[in-house]
Amino acid sequence: MMTGREYRQSLRARKPLKVFMGGERLKDPTDHPIIAASINSIALTYELAEDPKYRDAMTATSALTGRTINRFCHLHQSPEELYRKCGMQRLLGQKCGTCFQRCVGMDAFNSAYITTYETDRKHGTDYHQRFVEYVKTAEAQDWVVDGAMTDPKQDRSLRPDRAPDAYLRVVERREGGVVIRGAKMHQTGAVNSHQIMVMPTIALKPEERDFAVCCALPADSPGITYIYGRQPCDTRLLEDPPGANLDIGSPYGGQECIIVFDDVFVPRERVFMDGETDFSGRLVETFAGYHRSSYACKTGVGDVAIGAAALIAEYNGTAGAAHVRDKIVEMIHLNETIWSSCVACCYKGARTPAGNYLIDLLLANVAKQNVTRFPYEIARLLQDIAGGLLVTMPGAGEFRNPATRKYLELYLKGAGDGSAENRFKLLRLIENLTLGRAAVGYLTESMHGAGSPQAQRIMIARLAELDKKKEMARRIARIGD
Amino acid sequence: MMTGREYRQSLRARKPLKVFMGGERLKDPTDHPIIAASINSIALTYELAEDPKYRDAMTATSALTGRTINRFCHLHQSPEELYRKCGMQRLLGQKCGTCFQRCVGMDAFNSAYITTYETDRKHGTDYHQRFVEYVKTAEAQDWVVDGAMTDPKQDRSLRPDRAPDAYLRVVERREGGVVIRGAKMHQTGAVNSHQIMVMPTIALKPEERDFAVCCALPADSPGITYIYGRQPCDTRLLEDPPGANLDIGSPYGGQECIIVFDDVFVPRERVFMDGETDFSGRLVETFAGYHRSSYACKTGVGDVAIGAAALIAEYNGTAGAAHVRDKIVEMIHLNETIWSSCVACCYKGARTPAGNYLIDLLLANVAKQNVTRFPYEIARLLQDIAGGLLVTMPGAGEFRNPATRKYLELYLKGAGDGSAENRFKLLRLIENLTLGRAAVGYLTESMHGAGSPQAQRIMIARLAELDKKKEMARRIARIGD
Amino acid sequence: MMTGREYRQSLRARKPLKVFMGGERLKDPTDHPIIAASINSIALTYELAEDPKYRDAMTATSALTGRTINRFCHLHQSPEELYRKCGMQRLLGQKCGTCFQRCVGMDAFNSAYITTYETDRKHGTDYHQRFVEYVKTAEAQDWVVDGAMTDPKQDRSLRPDRAPDAYLRVVERREGGVVIRGAKMHQTGAVNSHQIMVMPTIALKPEERDFAVCCALPADSPGITYIYGRQPCDTRLLEDPPGANLDIGSPYGGQECIIVFDDVFVPRERVFMDGETDFSGRLVETFAGYHRSSYACKTGVGDVAIGAAALIAEYNGTAGAAHVRDKIVEMIHLNETIWSSCVACCYKGARTPAGNYLIDLLLANVAKQNVTRFPYEIARLLQDIAGGLLVTMPGAGEFRNPATRKYLELYLKGAGDGSAENRFKLLRLIENLTLGRAAVGYLTESMHGAGSPQAQRIMIARLAELDKKKEMARRIARIGD
Amino acid sequence: MMTGREYRQSLRARKPLKVFMGGERLKDPTDHPIIAASINSIALTYELAEDPKYRDAMTATSALTGRTINRFCHLHQSPEELYRKCGMQRLLGQKCGTCFQRCVGMDAFNSAYITTYETDRKHGTDYHQRFVEYVKTAEAQDWVVDGAMTDPKQDRSLRPDRAPDAYLRVVERREGGVVIRGAKMHQTGAVNSHQIMVMPTIALKPEERDFAVCCALPADSPGITYIYGRQPCDTRLLEDPPGANLDIGSPYGGQECIIVFDDVFVPRERVFMDGETDFSGRLVETFAGYHRSSYACKTGVGDVAIGAAALIAEYNGTAGAAHVRDKIVEMIHLNETIWSSCVACCYKGARTPAGNYLIDLLLANVAKQNVTRFPYEIARLLQDIAGGLLVTMPGAGEFRNPATRKYLELYLKGAGDGSAENRFKLLRLIENLTLGRAAVGYLTESMHGAGSPQAQRIMIARLAELDKKKEMARRIARIGD
Repeated sequence: MMTGREYRQSLRARKPLKVFMGGERLKDPTDHPIIAASINSIALTYELAEDPKYRDAMTATSALTGRTINRFCHLHQSPEELYRKCGMQRLLGQKCGTCFQRCVGMDAFNSAYITTYETDRKHGTDYHQRFVEYVKTAEAQDWVVDGAMTDPKQDRSLRPDRAPDAYLRVVERREGGVVIRGAKMHQTGAVNSHQIMVMPTIALKPEERDFAVCCALPADSPGITYIYGRQPCDTRLLEDPPGANLDIGSPYGGQECIIVFDDVFVPRERVFMDGETDFSGRLVETFAGYHRSSYACKTGVGDVAIGAAALIAEYNGTAGAAHVRDKIVEMIHLNETIWSSCVACCYKGARTPAGNYLIDLLLANVAKQNVTRFPYEIARLLQDIAGGLLVTMPGAGEFRNPATRKYLELYLKGAGDGSAENRFKLLRLIENLTLGRAAVGYLTESMHGAGSPQAQRIMIARLAELDKKKEMARRIARIGD
Repeated sequence: MMTGREYRQSLRARKPLKVFMGGERLKDPTDHPIIAASINSIALTYELAEDPKYRDAMTATSALTGRTINRFCHLHQSPEELYRKCGMQRLLGQKCGTCFQRCVGMDAFNSAYITTYETDRKHGTDYHQRFVEYVKTAEAQDWVVDGAMTDPKQDRSLRPDRAPDAYLRVVERREGGVVIRGAKMHQTGAVNSHQIMVMPTIALKPEERDFAVCCALPADSPGITYIYGRQPCDTRLLEDPPGANLDIGSPYGGQECIIVFDDVFVPRERVFMDGETDFSGRLVETFAGYHRSSYACKTGVGDVAIGAAALIAEYNGTAGAAHVRDKIVEMIHLNETIWSSCVACCYKGARTPAGNYLIDLLLANVAKQNVTRFPYEIARLLQDIAGGLLVTMPGAGEFRNPATRKYLELYLKGAGDGSAENRFKLLRLIENLTLGRAAVGYLTESMHGAGSPQAQRIMIARLAELDKKKEMARRIARIGD
Repeated sequence: MMTGREYRQSLRARKPLKVFMGGERLKDPTDHPIIAASINSIALTYELAEDPKYRDAMTATSALTGRTINRFCHLHQSPEELYRKCGMQRLLGQKCGTCFQRCVGMDAFNSAYITTYETDRKHGTDYHQRFVEYVKTAEAQDWVVDGAMTDPKQDRSLRPDRAPDAYLRVVERREGGVVIRGAKMHQTGAVNSHQIMVMPTIALKPEERDFAVCCALPADSPGITYIYGRQPCDTRLLEDPPGANLDIGSPYGGQECIIVFDDVFVPRERVFMDGETDFSGRLVETFAGYHRSSYACKTGVGDVAIGAAALIAEYNGTAGAAHVRDKIVEMIHLNETIWSSCVACCYKGARTPAGNYLIDLLLANVAKQNVTRFPYEIARLLQDIAGGLLVTMPGAGEFRNPATRKYLELYLKGAGDGSAENRFKLLRLIENLTLGRAAVGYLTESMHGAGSPQAQRIMIARLAELDKKKEMARRIARIGD
Repeated sequence: MMTGREYRQSLRARKPLKVFMGGERLKDPTDHPIIAASINSIALTYELAEDPKYRDAMTATSALTGRTINRFCHLHQSPEELYRKCGMQRLLGQKCGTCFQRCVGMDAFNSAYITTYETDRKHGTDYHQRFVEYVKTAEAQDWVVDGAMTDPKQDRSLRPDRAPDAYLRVVERREGGVVIRGAKMHQTGAVNSHQIMVMPTIALKPEERDFAVCCALPADSPGITYIYGRQPCDTRLLEDPPGANLDIGSPYGGQECIIVFDDVFVPRERVFMDGETDFSGRLVETFAGYHRSSYACKTGVGDVAIGAAALIAEYNGTAGAAHVRDKIVEMIHLNETIWSSCVACCYKGARTPAGNYLIDLLLANVAKQNVTRFPYEIARLLQDIAGGLLVTMPGAGEFRNPATRKYLELYLKGAGDGSAENRFKLLRLIENLTLGRAAVGYLTESMHGAGSPQAQRIMIARLAELDKKKEMARRIARIGD
């Protein structure tokens, strides 16, 4: 396994990525302060694995090699391991208070492990063995793998045939591999990855076979362009002095990109689906299921939000007010309700024909549906407890300028250890969580990541076994007696 | 284990209970149509245990004797068994759509098993062995045991010393046993029980030792009076003709009583706490914890409610409407969210020093808190989908009278197999669930059973480890750096 | 204007109605205890009009004759009068805590006044003058008029041509009048009315002209059958002793019937629409608009619920608890939010071409939409504050039987003036409001009366002027710049 | 009245304000791009008053002089005028989609008009006439007046005597005037104002008389320091090229400052309270009441949010999806519910002894309480409909760089007129409303402006006349019969 330091070095060791931000191609993305914040988060997945206190949480025993590996590379082998995965995600959320970007690859691994197995069984292909080799390498290299699913879609009412650019596709099949063209949207942690694993975005029809492609390739493959996503308050990370910037709220960050594949070659041994449209829906659903349970991380961010609420209440001198205490209980209750559905979908997980474990799909969709609601309410309550200063507070510059600092130190000081500076830092964290960079992950990504709310509702409807429930009602009502 | 039939006989075999209902003492409570409906529910706990299809769900292997016993008498031996308990409760909710009354005894067993063990360790008493003997007998006899906790309380702002009648207490300690006086409120299934297990209702102070009493006694002990609780629509069960009454909504029912103990003697070997006030709070909390997780049953009733919604939508010809389908998804989502928290608190359960398993207390309180909210919303959505006929429909008499039946058959008929009669029966079930006898269990009892909402909030606040969360916020905000 | 006493006599003065309840045709409906409770409510609309304290609220100056009339017969002449109508409805809700049944006629008057005027202008008919004459008589006679709109509908996916019995229609046009056949569902206060005013239930197509009928006829017209609706706990009103029955919760009640028109003749001068399908939708929408604002009455019932919550908290000794006080504030807030939308739709009301005033349709739909939600939450909070005794309390018989009364007086007594009896009465009122007869009006009727929630959403979508809002967004986003 | 252009010039005509932002004192605040955006909003209050289309909405007839004045300087003379004030606020919200900053002065005028009158009547002072003169000048000059109420408070559990700096106070009483010291927080539009009107922040005790000060002074008075508040995404307004910056979301902005009064002299004729502690609570409550109703502006911002939702759904090709349409209905419903409570509190407004009109306090508090909730839900639904691109979209630089623009134009294009650029602009507006500069006003200020939620709950409890409601319950339950 890599150390955090080695991970950072490994990013620099890649061929120069073509990354655009701020209207320019970046020289070295890893040096950019905005990207550095996102690397801080993902590096935690390595650093905590080194820490004896967290090693159990962060590592697992490879089912393929028996070696100790980072859990993010792991094929889950039991309900308990599914639960441990959620525990790791909550832990990381608590440590960085934002998105640590490494889940998509793990979820892609576990879902492709299933579908390559099933595809081979039906079609006599050899994807599964290829994929197993790939996972072995990923485990050994301790890679960050970007799981790339969402296509641009453009006008969502059009199918791929009427909007081919809206969906990534194979444009050429060559000796030794395929050439892909298109884009993947909302790519979390893309620039911080070693590899990209491409998957189709929807269930496809037989005639849409060029769009049914799943494959993996190095992040520094020729033909790839990364267009970096903008986040609220991102440029505060560029303000002076970088080391002591009080306005950033948190040294951690998330990362979102558009990845453009402008005719990129992928060698055959890294192609795990090519035209088997009958398995595209299965791969999407399985990945979505795993990934919906991965939103367990938001309960870790929720813990930070709850802690921030409790602390700012102390600083404001309102910690004893009944309504404040009650709101904090409500935040905890909502956070633990999300957690409950994550825990439940793990323990009700089941062994797949391929041998790894899949979370319970109904409960995973329930979990994610709660994630599309409760963080917004937790954030609202956090703002309620924080007070209006949250958005009316001056910037760090005023805190450093003696002409204004004297006033701020006098007027902003709170109760307990709530010096003006501590209160300032804490309010910036709260801003970060509810309106800033971390809100991207805690709110909007909670809404849309791993599928928008309606996607979960469709799955819930499908999995609910409504006919059985109708029969229950019928019997008690004695209909048919 | 008893069969359903044997259970019904065993109730008749008791000495005549002193049961009051309708202003009179009942001759034989088991014959009374209102009570018969509640017996139908509790008898299911025996009948399903006989059914090969459900035997696994309904039975367990005794940790005390190794024999196969009804799970309601079982001391849970693993997280999986805690989960199976919840599964059994959901199943029974699906079968009767109301309260089946047998959970309190099971939860009392598991909590007293813990506290007697702990009391003995601290005080050198011998309660645990006594209690083990008691449980062995209960398992062998396959008893229904009423777990009797809630005292009258009267003015809740007064402690026992200022309102002694408000709390059950030992009024005499004799050779061979104790004499208790007081009442227990909200006693679910009391008249359908073989035994009553008395527990204190609050954490007590050292000077309140007479109130710290836990003991078990036969339901037909001299000095006990049962005052039967009234429920909405209960007397419909008395209407003519009993066999074919269309207005009852369901042949199943719940049961609530006040039990008055007018100086009742309990022999020493059935006394499991007598004055150890330092364990009263522990017993209350442990029992409450188990019992809160037992509200898993409401997801079974929720399944019936969802099924009823789907079916009435078919009858109304609205099953295809997008808003109807969406409301049903919402009902499922809420129901499964409750279920998730029940499942989670089981799988995160842990072995106690006494050896049985206790659910995770935080998550059990979260589960119950959700139960105080979501069934009300599910019931509201069910009424939304059902339509106004739910409360404007004539009674069964009009359905049997040819002068009106012809009109009803014409005007009330719906789509599909929604004949007027089927629609009528189904609407009566929906009335029963949302405004009638079953609403007692599905709504109000969901609110107050196993502790009112505020009781859970107090526990959630206590168990949330807020200091750890504050530290998380502090670190990310770099407070103290 | 009639006095309350005269009103009661006037009901007896009708030809014997054909009313079925309990499987039988009733001799004299006004004597039946269940119906008597509903008459108590409607009689308040006369009694308060006699009371100097409420005369202003209850009466108005006729726009047709200049005479002082009961406001329930009034054609509203200003926004202020629309508001006063809501004020009267809230007042009556506060006085009886349930549905007082007289609004539908008032709302039918005001809407038919508009549509007859508009129909005449387009079609050259003379409906408006006929209708004015009718209203003059109604004012002079101080009639209760049942506004009969909702047809049986059966399978809601079928239009009238495929399900003719599902919609009331003209089956014969004779010299001097028309003959109608069909049924009207959910007829509030039907048996307590002097007159019935029939209206179509949906917007109709040209070929559905036989269904486009609006007319008025005496409640005791030949060929009419009333099938009385059953309500939760209704038969408690039949229990002994009637005068002092402690279980009824309230001496007031609502009333719902199915009215069957088995070829009933209506004279031409009382026909206000016959085939003008182009105005059926307009009449439905206008009536629905008025009637949705009439749900202001629920804020009066809400006041009773809030008062009951505050009082039972006193009796329970919990009135000082912060969470109890906060829940009461929430109940008030929700109740006043409903009230606000009622007030707003009145003051934004506008003069119609016919001369009377119509509420603002968008805000009236918003008001009603809130009514489909907040009473359920108010009722839930009321149950939260009340405690479980609400549904576990014994019946009145146990309160009268000395053998049990002694226990109840001891164990049920609360704080302050919360004697066991007062607490008992209050809990029965709370049961009545949330699970009993009054819950029919406060909950389910709040959901479905004047149109189910989806009906309001369709209107809100239609009235929202979404294009204007899109333009606002477009301009600020500088789209098109 | 001034034109928009004159208003902008008038700001430059002030003596140089001491404004700090970004760590520096600004040369000319009005030139600063961040401040310019906020001036754009407030200038609309002048520009629309010039526009014949909006003149009626924006102007009123002075009650003091009979002249036509900007409604923001007006003392409201009827319920209808209170309503027109709300209408003006909604209009402005629709035009700028953010806070236009001029309400506080108007609300301060109307409340001080009442309290100076009442103070004089009790204390024989001559504040009212002074104040009338001041208002006359303000009307004639068409001033923007900053209503400065909220003190720093520091530890909220301390009273002024224990934390004197936490509350602004008179530190010297001189011939001709008073000297004040302290700070006012959350000062909306402060730097864009001509005048500041200082008010006390809480109800005061007799011994706290130095804190009971209300007075007005020029914004450019010596001794005043403005510390400019930082907002999410504010520095995007500084990015190049300013004129065509695609990332700003909107050219409009709000403004919040801390104003420090470092021993500032105020002449006697502009002092409207000095030590009359018995009227400090009255002034606070009256101001809060007016100001809570002024949150009607948020319904205008809500209209923009709803329009943005409808438009982005078109661009996404999802406008026809049932769930999207339903979410838009929900947004409208919530927005109109807020509007209803604003409308209602105006029309139930009443004449004060001073002669102007005060909104209904209970309903104004209900209105504001809804504002602390529904905008958050509207924003959540807007994010739901917008899709994840909202937070993963690249910055404007990538849109201008040809190397990336080609990809963005291809992959981001939507349906209808949803070119990539239009979609980009619209998503930036949505980001602005839910996570950016406008979210400050639409969300957090909705929560805390004019008092945090708990402040409204205290008022609702106080104004609800709970005893009357208890009596209603008592009578229907026949308690005391």
